[in-house]
Amino acid sequence: MTEVTCDCIGCEIVKIKDLIRQTVWGAHAHGIVVGISGGIDSAVACSLCCKALGPERVLGVNMPVSSNDPADHDDAEELCRSMGVELITVPLEEVRSAFLAAPHITDTPILRGNIAARLRMTTLYNIAAARSLLVCGTSNKTEYMIGYSTKWGDSAADIQPLLHLWKKDVFLLAKELGVPDSIISKPPSAGFWEGQSDEGELGMTYAELDAALISLERSGGIPANPIEEKALGFVKYSMHKRVPAANLLTT
Amino acid sequence: MTEVTCDCIGCEIVKIKDLIRQTVWGAHAHGIVVGISGGIDSAVACSLCCKALGPERVLGVNMPVSSNDPADHDDAEELCRSMGVELITVPLEEVRSAFLAAPHITDTPILRGNIAARLRMTTLYNIAAARSLLVCGTSNKTEYMIGYSTKWGDSAADIQPLLHLWKKDVFLLAKELGVPDSIISKPPSAGFWEGQSDEGELGMTYAELDAALISLERSGGIPANPIEEKALGFVKYSMHKRVPAANLLTT
Repeated sequence: MTEVTCDCIGCEIVKIKDLIRQTVWGAHAHGIVVGISGGIDSAVACSLCCKALGPERVLGVNMPVSSNDPADHDDAEELCRSMGVELITVPLEEVRSAFLAAPHITDTPILRGNIAARLRMTTLYNIAAARSLLVCGTSNKTEYMIGYSTKWGDSAADIQPLLHLWKKDVFLLAKELGVPDSIISKPPSAGFWEGQSDEGELGMTYAELDAALISLERSGGIPANPIEEKALGFVKYSMHKRVPAANLLTT
Repeated sequence: MTEVTCDCIGCEIVKIKDLIRQTVWGAHAHGIVVGISGGIDSAVACSLCCKALGPERVLGVNMPVSSNDPADHDDAEELCRSMGVELITVPLEEVRSAFLAAPHITDTPILRGNIAARLRMTTLYNIAAARSLLVCGTSNKTEYMIGYSTKWGDSAADIQPLLHLWKKDVFLLAKELGVPDSIISKPPSAGFWEGQSDEGELGMTYAELDAALISLERSGGIPANPIEEKALGFVKYSMHKRVPAANLLTT
């Protein structure tokens, strides 16, 4: 019998493993599919799925587009090899090009990234449906709170095992779980365009952002400095991504 | 000053108009985009958006694939013409073909339909982002309760003005709002394949389904006959579509 009461990394892993098992078993699914970008969030999510279900019940999918660093694909392969997880690759550049060629579609760097994120969701759900798998999301609490994701894209999944973890906790887990150093040490990037870095785009480091969000949680949303003010702006602006679509169902 | 207290059709329209206005204004959006299939749900949603915002703030988008009846496109055009709404057409067959040609993608009639629904969501969000519009969903309570929709596809939107209405109420509103008879009288279809009818696929009529769901609401989910038993099965099986992805955020 396991009683989880403390907040050490070991107990955290137990709690997440239980969530994954309960969700997969409760759905009568055969296992889980995870989009593997070569970044730290998907590496940690994939590793936790392996620990919960065994690697033979986990399928990794790398879905590159032209703006992604080819080194990311190598990292995805190394990660899955090290964990004994099958990795398949579904290149999505041609599909995106076909989409961008349709009439009335607008092409900007951000909108291209949004299309890629939504095509990835569509890919993962096609693969999951054909193999009776659930789709594992890789969102963490930091990006969830500021809405740093594509609505109905990378944020759309059946299970979100990292959603309660700040980015700093994802780093701690990555080290504990033995995620390769090349993945832990690279600058986080959504890969929307070549050379994009999350921290460059956000205008602050993840350490600053985590600290600001934690402080805002404690103060009840009253910002104490310009970074917290900026973070609070992100939170407010992205509210629509965290609530159901507006409706009259419950009024 | 308007105080809405009764449940007549006129007051229902007032409530929905208020929801649409509050949501669009609250988001500082310029208006709303609606996917117009040629069916009754999108016709009613579009008409309500026009009444709430004026037709010049509503954009209709028809997104045909090969399995759709060409008459649906004509109905979409007639609807928008009658309401003074701009309609644009984004054919998605070629994009879907490119998607189906990608490695590891499985092609079955239902999975093809799911891909179309998710490509439509992707299209509507691209158009909405480029023009500062919100995306209007067209789901009603009957299909929501039984999960008769594609997860992160047609069910994914910023506002769902019909989500509290049974299918029978959508028909009542359609007549009240002057939706063309050709749209009201055609058999409801998701258009996943040629000749598909919702009622054929569900194995019961919408009248039977509405009655079963209303009875289940009253009985607290205890089925009184085989049709209610079947409807309850749909409700249980589709629970995952109505709840957030599984996570540890609030535990």
